[in-house]
Amino acid sequence: MAKVYVVGLGPGADQQMTREAHAVIERCPVIVGYTVYVDLVKEQYPEKVFLTTPMTQEVKRCKMALEEAQNGRDTAMICSGDAGVYGMAGLMYETGKEYPDVDIKIVPGITAANGGAAVLGAPLMHDFAVISLSDLLTPWEKIERRIKAAAMADFVICLYNPSSKKRRDYLKKACEMMLEYKSPDTICGTVRNIGRDGEKSHIMTLGQLKDTEVDMFTTVFIGNEQTMEINGKMVTPRGYRNV
Amino acid sequence: MAKVYVVGLGPGADQQMTREAHAVIERCPVIVGYTVYVDLVKEQYPEKVFLTTPMTQEVKRCKMALEEAQNGRDTAMICSGDAGVYGMAGLMYETGKEYPDVDIKIVPGITAANGGAAVLGAPLMHDFAVISLSDLLTPWEKIERRIKAAAMADFVICLYNPSSKKRRDYLKKACEMMLEYKSPDTICGTVRNIGRDGEKSHIMTLGQLKDTEVDMFTTVFIGNEQTMEINGKMVTPRGYRNV
Repeated sequence: MAKVYVVGLGPGADQQMTREAHAVIERCPVIVGYTVYVDLVKEQYPEKVFLTTPMTQEVKRCKMALEEAQNGRDTAMICSGDAGVYGMAGLMYETGKEYPDVDIKIVPGITAANGGAAVLGAPLMHDFAVISLSDLLTPWEKIERRIKAAAMADFVICLYNPSSKKRRDYLKKACEMMLEYKSPDTICGTVRNIGRDGEKSHIMTLGQLKDTEVDMFTTVFIGNEQTMEINGKMVTPRGYRNV
Repeated sequence: MAKVYVVGLGPGADQQMTREAHAVIERCPVIVGYTVYVDLVKEQYPEKVFLTTPMTQEVKRCKMALEEAQNGRDTAMICSGDAGVYGMAGLMYETGKEYPDVDIKIVPGITAANGGAAVLGAPLMHDFAVISLSDLLTPWEKIERRIKAAAMADFVICLYNPSSKKRRDYLKKACEMMLEYKSPDTICGTVRNIGRDGEKSHIMTLGQLKDTEVDMFTTVFIGNEQTMEINGKMVTPRGYRNV
C-alpha cells in the first residue's frame, strides 16, 4: 500500500526545507496542497501530478491525498512551516480513519516559532508557549485563558495569527492581558515574511507592542522576565552564564 | 569580518538537517561543538578545523567560535535540535558582547518538540507549551508554576529533560501537578532517540505516564482535552472538522 506523507516545507524559503522533506517530495509522484505551496514545487518537478484545493477546503484536500495513496501512488501533502503546528497533520489522521489501509507519515519542518526566533536572535531559549490568536476554531475565552496563564507563569510567548481584517485589535487585547502580569518594559519582537523576500523584524517593548499593528504574515514574540536586547537582537538567557 | 553561525542539526539524523544548515557547515572552514556532534560531521569533512569542548564548558565553546571569527574564519557552532531552544544561541549572543565586531547568525533546526511530534502523529497541532524539567539552571518553584499554569489553561505540554539520575521522580511530580487540572485519561506520548537508531515511541494515558520511568533521551507529550488516539497515533484536532 502506498503512503501519504504530510510534509512541512519550513518558513517560506527552500533553504529551510529538511533533506527528508526534499527527498520525500522528489520521490512521490503525486503532490497535494494549497495552491500557493504547490506552485512553489511545480516548477521544479513538471512531471509530477499536482492536486490543489483552495484555502478552506482542508478535509477535501486530505481525502484527495488519501485516495491517491489508496490507489497505489505515494502522495506528499505539502504545508508551510511544520505540518504538526496549526497545520494539516492532525486532520490527515482524523480523515484517515476512513482509509484504514493507508499509512500516514509526518515529515517535520521548521515552524514560525523557531524560524522567526532565529531571525530575532534567541528569544525562545527557555520554556515557551505558542498561542494562536485566531478564534475561527477556538473560543476566544480559551485563548484568553491561555494568554493569561502563560503570562502569569513567565513563559516566553510566541503568537501565531496575531491579526486579520476581522480581528484588528486582537494583538492589542492580548498585550493588555499580558500587561497584567508582565512589565511594560518586557522585550518583544515581531517578524514578518520569515525566510521570504521582504523579511522584516522589529524589537520593541511590550508597552510599544500594544500599540503596534501587525498583519497575518507576522509572528510575535513576547519575552520572559530575563529577556534582553543585545546589539539589536532579542535574547533570552538559558542561565549558562555561571558555568 | 567573518561570521559565527549557530547551527541546529535537528534531532539526530542527518535527514532532518535543513539545506541551509548543510550549506553553512559545508562553507565554514571551522566547526565548533560538543564532542559528540562534531564527530558526526568530522567524517564527512576531514579538511576542516574542528574545535571541541566537553558538555559543561559552554562559555568557553562560544569564545572559541567568536575568536575564530574575529581572526577572519567563518565558524559554525553546531548543536543538536534547534540552537534557539535550550541550546547555545542565547549564550552566543551574551558572550558575543565582548566581540562587538563579530556578526552572529542563527540557523534554525527541528527541535525535539516538532521532531518527536511527527513520530507520535500530531500531538501539538494547537496551542502548546514547552517546559524543561531540568532544575540545574531554573528554580524548581518556577518550573512548578509553569507546569500548573500550562495544565490549567489546557495547553498541550511538551516536556524536555524529563528525567536524570539525580531527578528520577521529576516526571512523576510533574504528572501529579498536571492531574490537578487534567483528566487521568488525557492522552500522552513519549519518544526516545528521535530520528536516531533505536527510536521508540509509546502512547498512554496521563495516569499511566505518572508511573512510567523515562530517561534523558526521551521527550514527553501531554495532550489537551481534545487529544485522542487514532490507530496508535496521538492526535490533537485543530478543529477543522466542520469545514
